[in-house]
Amino acid sequence: MEAPKRYKKEFDYSYALGAYTTIELIRARPALVRSVYVHSDCADKGAIERLCQEDSIPVKFDDRIFDKVSPKENCYVLSVFSKYVEALSSEKPHIVLVNPGDMGNLGAIARIAAAFNIKNLGIVMPAADILHPRAVRASMGSVFRINHQRFGSFDAYRAAYPDHRIFPFMVGARDALDLDSVRVENRFALVFGNEASGLDPAAFQGIGTPLRIPQSDLVDSLNISVAVGIGAFAFAKANGLV
Amino acid sequence: MEAPKRYKKEFDYSYALGAYTTIELIRARPALVRSVYVHSDCADKGAIERLCQEDSIPVKFDDRIFDKVSPKENCYVLSVFSKYVEALSSEKPHIVLVNPGDMGNLGAIARIAAAFNIKNLGIVMPAADILHPRAVRASMGSVFRINHQRFGSFDAYRAAYPDHRIFPFMVGARDALDLDSVRVENRFALVFGNEASGLDPAAFQGIGTPLRIPQSDLVDSLNISVAVGIGAFAFAKANGLV
Repeated sequence: MEAPKRYKKEFDYSYALGAYTTIELIRARPALVRSVYVHSDCADKGAIERLCQEDSIPVKFDDRIFDKVSPKENCYVLSVFSKYVEALSSEKPHIVLVNPGDMGNLGAIARIAAAFNIKNLGIVMPAADILHPRAVRASMGSVFRINHQRFGSFDAYRAAYPDHRIFPFMVGARDALDLDSVRVENRFALVFGNEASGLDPAAFQGIGTPLRIPQSDLVDSLNISVAVGIGAFAFAKANGLV
Repeated sequence: MEAPKRYKKEFDYSYALGAYTTIELIRARPALVRSVYVHSDCADKGAIERLCQEDSIPVKFDDRIFDKVSPKENCYVLSVFSKYVEALSSEKPHIVLVNPGDMGNLGAIARIAAAFNIKNLGIVMPAADILHPRAVRASMGSVFRINHQRFGSFDAYRAAYPDHRIFPFMVGARDALDLDSVRVENRFALVFGNEASGLDPAAFQGIGTPLRIPQSDLVDSLNISVAVGIGAFAFAKANGLV
């Protein structure tokens, strides 16, 4: 492998920063791990080394990579993993994000998806990079517990999964139903828009069953990860997923 | 007023960064606003000026303050406001955060509080500064729509509001009830712990009715603002607050 470099989107690998994230990576997807780096100041080298040995993952000791890859973070373990592509399950429920722009939100939403067993995440491009080290760390490694797949457009998503019933979450939709008035089914897709602009009502006119989370008129909208959390929890409860 | 400086916690004033946050500030708490600065590149100076005139708020044009106060942000309007202290309502429901450490989370939680009409936020110290410009901006100005009060300890909070029924949210509590199995009442306090450590089970032993948000064992816990969002929404719905 070439000398480690600061992450770039076009790389075919990325970094999982921190011991917790690395352990999640190794547990969920050991075959993806190219190597694990342990900093000389790491308090518990032995535990990480043992975990790597079980899966024959090379452990390296080179402090310089931490300055290069994670200059500002308090990070003593990091791993290099191969990026991957994976189709969503056509039998399972989905969360679909249209043009998500923030890596922290992507990470938080991956955690929500894993927490509520809605483990198939569609991402309509353009979008922030869910395998960027910052998104992976924000997910605390949950991104490795779910499937994610990118789509060039929402229509491309629908064409790929035509049997999923679509629930667009739209703050402003006049005909939107309250969350708890909706019966759920095996194959549903909870669809959320971009942080700043939400879902375009014109583009979603007549598509699926629009939903809104009841809220006061004191705020414009909720933070997207909070909205996904409330929506996913409601559907997971109603469907017996948690 | 002295020359504008980068924000420090000990100041008796803070900054609301951005036009949206400033408009929320002026609408919710006009008496707190000391002055509003408009950058020469601001696209819609007139609207801000008119709003300030209605409340006799001085408008200033000085681009240098933006470099000083908000060097990295894309910000063309900012306001200087007096910090304030306010007791929580003893008749209304509360959200109580024990040692919250992250300003972004504080801001997101202020937005949740406003969205779900649980507009009294207790903060047990030590804690991140909810009036820091970053927290204020993360709240998109919602912090001005709610009351917040700081307490030296959780006991001090309880002593001040002894009639509120306490619902500590604890991921690990074995005797915790599911969210939807709880009947609610007028005066409740939803209590959440620090981002990293949660609520200490020993400290909350025998206090109130512990709750947990059902979730898979794939994740350690949810992001705190997501957990507060789900908890607050469930209580708001059950109580007819939204």
